[in-house]
Amino acid sequence: MLFPPLIERKRDGGALTPAEWHNVITGYLGGAVPDYQMAAMLMAIVWRGLEPAELEALMEAMLASGATLDWSGFARPRVDKHSTGGVGDKVSIVLAPLVASCGVAVPMMSGRGLGHTGGTTDKLEAIPGFRTALSLAEVRAQVERIGVAMFGQSDAIAPADRRLYALRDVTGTVPSIPLIAASIMSKKLAEGLSGLVLDVKTGSGAFMAEPAAAVTLARTMVALGEAHGCRTSALVTAMDRPLGRAIGNALEIEETLLALEGQGPDDLMLVTRALAVEMLMLAGTDTDRAAANRRVTEALDSGKALATFRELIAAQGGDPAVIDDPGLLPQANEVELFEAPAAGTVASVDPRPLGLAVVAMGGGRRALGEAIDPSVGFVVSARPGARVARGEPIASVFARDAAGAALGLRALEEAIRFGEPVPQLPLISHRVTATGVETF
Amino acid sequence: MLFPPLIERKRDGGALTPAEWHNVITGYLGGAVPDYQMAAMLMAIVWRGLEPAELEALMEAMLASGATLDWSGFARPRVDKHSTGGVGDKVSIVLAPLVASCGVAVPMMSGRGLGHTGGTTDKLEAIPGFRTALSLAEVRAQVERIGVAMFGQSDAIAPADRRLYALRDVTGTVPSIPLIAASIMSKKLAEGLSGLVLDVKTGSGAFMAEPAAAVTLARTMVALGEAHGCRTSALVTAMDRPLGRAIGNALEIEETLLALEGQGPDDLMLVTRALAVEMLMLAGTDTDRAAANRRVTEALDSGKALATFRELIAAQGGDPAVIDDPGLLPQANEVELFEAPAAGTVASVDPRPLGLAVVAMGGGRRALGEAIDPSVGFVVSARPGARVARGEPIASVFARDAAGAALGLRALEEAIRFGEPVPQLPLISHRVTATGVETF
Repeated sequence: MLFPPLIERKRDGGALTPAEWHNVITGYLGGAVPDYQMAAMLMAIVWRGLEPAELEALMEAMLASGATLDWSGFARPRVDKHSTGGVGDKVSIVLAPLVASCGVAVPMMSGRGLGHTGGTTDKLEAIPGFRTALSLAEVRAQVERIGVAMFGQSDAIAPADRRLYALRDVTGTVPSIPLIAASIMSKKLAEGLSGLVLDVKTGSGAFMAEPAAAVTLARTMVALGEAHGCRTSALVTAMDRPLGRAIGNALEIEETLLALEGQGPDDLMLVTRALAVEMLMLAGTDTDRAAANRRVTEALDSGKALATFRELIAAQGGDPAVIDDPGLLPQANEVELFEAPAAGTVASVDPRPLGLAVVAMGGGRRALGEAIDPSVGFVVSARPGARVARGEPIASVFARDAAGAALGLRALEEAIRFGEPVPQLPLISHRVTATGVETF
Repeated sequence: MLFPPLIERKRDGGALTPAEWHNVITGYLGGAVPDYQMAAMLMAIVWRGLEPAELEALMEAMLASGATLDWSGFARPRVDKHSTGGVGDKVSIVLAPLVASCGVAVPMMSGRGLGHTGGTTDKLEAIPGFRTALSLAEVRAQVERIGVAMFGQSDAIAPADRRLYALRDVTGTVPSIPLIAASIMSKKLAEGLSGLVLDVKTGSGAFMAEPAAAVTLARTMVALGEAHGCRTSALVTAMDRPLGRAIGNALEIEETLLALEGQGPDDLMLVTRALAVEMLMLAGTDTDRAAANRRVTEALDSGKALATFRELIAAQGGDPAVIDDPGLLPQANEVELFEAPAAGTVASVDPRPLGLAVVAMGGGRRALGEAIDPSVGFVVSARPGARVARGEPIASVFARDAAGAALGLRALEEAIRFGEPVPQLPLISHRVTATGVETF
């Protein structure tokens, strides 16, 4: 294969054949296509996009570059959820045991924190002993046994995506909807799923800030999943404010414990329940949404969801006692209250400075492999539109030391604006399925 | 300097500052900017273009990456010509001694064959002994002594261009008017010129096939030259048919000998004279075109131009006896006539298959550093629009062996079309100067 003519065709707005995309990926992994040629191709894709057949072929080639979960002989439907990432987004940790407790197998692969957003595996590792580095064989065995496993992305899965992502990261070629969609779907579909629901975040704290772009990404990923034979739907949800109250690894685990009993903050419960209903419908457990909703309520109210989380923690080496005593989770040395500087209305709560502050306070990584402090973060009780009195405590900072606490207070000052309430995005704005886009 | 944000700015249609472009080039040469990041930047430039101030800064940084000819203490104006390349384009070899014989210093740096186009240094090296690898000091000394030097691109000149060109060649980022302009001008301006005329070829045999793109390239390069303080003009000339009759290194030298006596084919003489007039005007030797034209005629008719070429050959180690006996030039083993297959009209002569055939017959390189056979090529006497009789010899093939001759005959069959004459581009269509574009 001569690669430059393929770059030139894409540069000029043409399309590559599926076989050519397959050769591009195998050539890149095999070393025949050097990084500098792939970088030029990636920029040409950012410019010209990919036609649906090209995107399918590229995603399939990325998926085929690595291992996939083998479910032969396993009869139950397997459903997972993927979120494009946000601040305070602990939904996965509630959702996986909740849906599993409703009888659906949930092999859930998650990522670490990225930029200003937290990562599910980092949050789970706040639970003393919890191990996310499971082999694919361990995942299958655990799902067979207790119906759920939560694990980090293995090196065996989609190595082409890992190499491409590292290259995109340093060549200005990250913001391309087809490249983002191929990256996400090549990893999720390696789980051998029968169904997948996507939580596409939009707003200032999301990677896809514009709602229209979020809908396009959702449609693109749903089409990729369906073409692969995996039933796929997506919800577009708000990330112009943090989700729930807690931000930070251990603090978010604490909030998920409440949510697993149905007692979490309203926005967290609404998003979690909507995604759970999608998963039950995709699995075929229920065929109408009202029944699925009742099943979710029952799982939360009966304690079944929480019991499944207890099993999950124990199965993965964690200490299930944290469920009864959240004080066993890592605790911050410094806790400071943030008080409303004047009486008034909370205009907006910008998630991004808070997410960045968690990283700066030691709760996220600035370099690959860095150790993190799971105890740091925020609890923000003030919601946009809330009226507050002067001196009213509206948030707390949890920090390692006084410097971290000061940094956290500055981030709260930046994030929480007072005055005329800023219009907020609908919590769930769109539902995207193979048949189209519904406005919620 | 963090490079990815600069790629992102260009990707999003923004501009870099002159200082940033300088850092890009020094960072690239120094290794701080790897090839894969530069490749992404180059594709972003193909997509978004460069603003005039960006292009100037990029070109100046590329120029500053290498040595320049030092003319301190040398009072006479120095003028050169650059052609964007064509088939049968031997103008430089006529022009340099012709203009030098009119009293203008001509330090002329030329390239080797590229793709289907020939290169002036390859043609000169068809003269036994002729040496084109002059040091910059040798160039200056020779220009001081005889007024002219014709030399190959030294490694000392614009190393940034050499590295960028090699990268563009394999990343689909060649066809960008600003990148082409920066590449050409960073090399030509290293000659320390007071004036430069550009011959921008257009038509099927040119790199810039579309006349409008050729005019844009001409304007872009004229602006770059003028911004650098070098008086610059450009002619846009036809390359939808070969220039002159001879194609191939030694055959073209033979044709230049005729042209230096004013006896070359009409099209070759017209283009050469027009470029010579430009050079005399840029040098200030003449201030009106009629006088410059008379001076050119006088140099050709008096034998002064040919005498300067004789001096040039001798100065660079070649055998000047070729002037009196072109039979001393390398001679092809096989010569075959190509006869008109039927009575009719020559519709068109496509330069590209002929240029490619010269390479295939051994007269050009398929890999860097390959030896070439200077004897091979074509003489095509049929011009578009000519009426020919059945069996009339209208071209000759000069080949190393029977296989080469057969290949050459096939190329002539492909190149020479009969039938309704195809409209030809004007031989000289536009003149571009700092003040605007004139149609010829």
